[in-house]
Amino acid sequence: MTLEKILTSDNMNPMVRKAEYAVRGELAIRSEKIKTELANGASFPFKRVVGCNIGNPQALDQKPITFFRQVASLVEYPDLLKDENAELTSKLYPSDAIARAKLLLKHIGSVGAYSHSQGIPHIRENVARFISERDGYPADPSKIFLTQGASAGVQLTLQMIVEHSNVGIMIPIPQYPLYTATLAVLDAKPVPYYLNESKGWGLTPEELQRSYDEASRNGIETRALAIINPGNPTGQCLTEENMREIIEFCRQNRVILLADEVYQTNIYKPESRPFHSFKKVLMSMGPEYENFEMISYHSISKGMIGECGRRGGYFECQGLDTSIMEQVYKISSISLCPNVQGQIMVDLMVNPPKKGDPSYEQYKKEYDDIYFSLIRRAKKLEDTFNSLEGCTCNSSDGAMYLFPQIRLSEKAIAAAKEAGKEPDQFYCMAMLEATGVCMVAGSGFGQVENTAHFRSTFLPQPELFDDFCEGIKNFHASFMDKYRD
Amino acid sequence: MTLEKILTSDNMNPMVRKAEYAVRGELAIRSEKIKTELANGASFPFKRVVGCNIGNPQALDQKPITFFRQVASLVEYPDLLKDENAELTSKLYPSDAIARAKLLLKHIGSVGAYSHSQGIPHIRENVARFISERDGYPADPSKIFLTQGASAGVQLTLQMIVEHSNVGIMIPIPQYPLYTATLAVLDAKPVPYYLNESKGWGLTPEELQRSYDEASRNGIETRALAIINPGNPTGQCLTEENMREIIEFCRQNRVILLADEVYQTNIYKPESRPFHSFKKVLMSMGPEYENFEMISYHSISKGMIGECGRRGGYFECQGLDTSIMEQVYKISSISLCPNVQGQIMVDLMVNPPKKGDPSYEQYKKEYDDIYFSLIRRAKKLEDTFNSLEGCTCNSSDGAMYLFPQIRLSEKAIAAAKEAGKEPDQFYCMAMLEATGVCMVAGSGFGQVENTAHFRSTFLPQPELFDDFCEGIKNFHASFMDKYRD
Repeated sequence: MTLEKILTSDNMNPMVRKAEYAVRGELAIRSEKIKTELANGASFPFKRVVGCNIGNPQALDQKPITFFRQVASLVEYPDLLKDENAELTSKLYPSDAIARAKLLLKHIGSVGAYSHSQGIPHIRENVARFISERDGYPADPSKIFLTQGASAGVQLTLQMIVEHSNVGIMIPIPQYPLYTATLAVLDAKPVPYYLNESKGWGLTPEELQRSYDEASRNGIETRALAIINPGNPTGQCLTEENMREIIEFCRQNRVILLADEVYQTNIYKPESRPFHSFKKVLMSMGPEYENFEMISYHSISKGMIGECGRRGGYFECQGLDTSIMEQVYKISSISLCPNVQGQIMVDLMVNPPKKGDPSYEQYKKEYDDIYFSLIRRAKKLEDTFNSLEGCTCNSSDGAMYLFPQIRLSEKAIAAAKEAGKEPDQFYCMAMLEATGVCMVAGSGFGQVENTAHFRSTFLPQPELFDDFCEGIKNFHASFMDKYRD
Repeated sequence: MTLEKILTSDNMNPMVRKAEYAVRGELAIRSEKIKTELANGASFPFKRVVGCNIGNPQALDQKPITFFRQVASLVEYPDLLKDENAELTSKLYPSDAIARAKLLLKHIGSVGAYSHSQGIPHIRENVARFISERDGYPADPSKIFLTQGASAGVQLTLQMIVEHSNVGIMIPIPQYPLYTATLAVLDAKPVPYYLNESKGWGLTPEELQRSYDEASRNGIETRALAIINPGNPTGQCLTEENMREIIEFCRQNRVILLADEVYQTNIYKPESRPFHSFKKVLMSMGPEYENFEMISYHSISKGMIGECGRRGGYFECQGLDTSIMEQVYKISSISLCPNVQGQIMVDLMVNPPKKGDPSYEQYKKEYDDIYFSLIRRAKKLEDTFNSLEGCTCNSSDGAMYLFPQIRLSEKAIAAAKEAGKEPDQFYCMAMLEATGVCMVAGSGFGQVENTAHFRSTFLPQPELFDDFCEGIKNFHASFMDKYRD
């Protein structure tokens, strides 16, 4: 007897069904499959799959920061810190890593115990110190929440804000699809504002106002504005002046600012386009902005750390009502606590070795090597894209991505339609099958109608990078030839 | 200028506002505050706060399993596994921990990389092997999802099932408040069924049917039944016969079974009340149950492992429609992946050292020491509760809790009302202020009307356990005297 299914895609949660997340969508699933088939000896026109669909540096062999991992290793196995093992341990671990591990365990007890739901107090104090040193303005540990990565923080805070299905949240187009996916699940309305590709993915207050007003005319109550700075997928970095305009827009329209600043150290033009935190810019605008409502997010997954698999991050609440802070605590507590090793990595991120510490030189070298290599690879890939027929690509001020526009032929667009795919999705799938390179189609991020883009990280290994760029060039040329009108 | 708040508790997400989670509610918050005040030198009638509100063994000094932590430490710092460090490393780590760490890193690459959204394939294979060895029936790695603790799995799967606000999910009363909190956030209807305290918290199919029928009469579409076995907060362990009745109930009423089996190794009467998994019982019922829809949950936080702070667990899907499995994958992928160290601990849980391995004897001794100590402490606390005036307590077949009933005087009930609290909440708060022991009031779990209970773990340190029990006795006696009618 076969039972008829109780739960089907027709009667499941329709908001969940509606959510889309292209970064791990059809292309990524196909690339995983190819990887398995390659491992089982199947033949493809390439030897390896290169995952450029997601900012996952250590999956592409970026070496973790040694000091951070030494501390993480010691806190896992506290017997190493006992007197009887001191001699052996000191041969494998530097003294500052040992001291840090002891300090952390003094505050934490065990990495295997649930912590405070908001995050370990000692670590939140260090985050507050980091923020105040970064910005030159005070930060309060009681307004900081440690999370399982910035994604979890964004999901939690959006969940707080969405009162009903007519609540709108302004999001950039193109955007990181976490935002549209989360809003779909919450049954809220994305209110798109467009970044101007021809002006380096710039953002104007006029466009923000247009977007807000259009939503209002449609009966949408816009409650918050999400901004990603440096941008994902666009890589643009906002000027201080622009940020003041955005804050002013929010204040005038009574909109909470959600500042996704996870790429704050991925800054590739530090002279002309330095990073400014929204917190700092806000504070510089004077005491009348003290009650301005803002949440800003940071993560251990990006920057030169790249500890994605660990799931750690934090958000800082600014100007939120006390009753809301209590609710944020309550909802955090239902999941008990963020994982403790992720919290520890936040501690290390905000408090790395200092000049004079035994591990400082090595830390500095590892950090800089990654940083300067990212600058080189970003430029190399940008040049590659701009050398392709029908392709233009803004340069990257920051983050880990390029988002080139490709102009496809009528024939290619017809072939895509035939295959039941968006043109950019069709292009990316052809690239994956030909080269093993997995990117994400622009349609997954949103784009101006009748344009086609894709997002690629510039994370492939430095020693393989030339081959990687060459493979893209060859594929593109043959694709363009194949579908020439 | 003070800005009026945009987000307030009046216009936030009303479902979030409604959710309650007593395990980390008012009592726990007060206990955290006392802890801080004690540390700052304030004077209380006790020297330490004892958190019995939550099953958090390592916070009460339970030593982690050494082998597990050795592997976790090695994978954090792969330089330890290099040839040049082999001699030193082998003096600090046993050979089987080194071999396991190497094997895991071969499959994982780096613990700092995002993994497969469903969990690392190698680890899911080991989970499937564990399940099939436990049950004697096959398990399929493609139907296993690794999660950030069982809570995350329960939240995710409930989110899949709740189509609209008239969907009902059957939950036991008393229940672990994760269920009511999650259903509140999802705006779904809890459909309560009562466990019978006078029959050792037993469960009858008649009560299930009564609960289901009553919900139906109220227009509720019941789609799933959550069951916690061994029970939380009740500690009861179901018989195989009872489990067959429950499966049969689900089949006849077209209800998905959600089997929360996180306490499956916390079994204190292995002869008379052994643990049976619902998967095994289902499979034993014959091929006509093959398509029965069920999800079962497991965790690294409980058992003798107690690695709560790491956030790891898994769920196994049985009989779910393929389209639903795809949706579960998609929704998992929006959060990218469960933290990798949590996944690794799942691997260690399902594949611990075997007889003959270098670490086996130590593993076995550590495991057994915790296990037999838990049996002793459970009995000792049960006896303590049963010795109290007006208090009765069922014995614990499993899990980590006791849930005694207390009969309070009219005077105490009036005093509670005066203080704006439920009677059991009032009692627990008085206990906290007098003894430093933090428990959770029965009202947080649900209970038969006009009864009062509380939940306590039996996790305080063995060497402090007599004092702990003595403190409860003394407090109870003076509370009863103070409010004697």
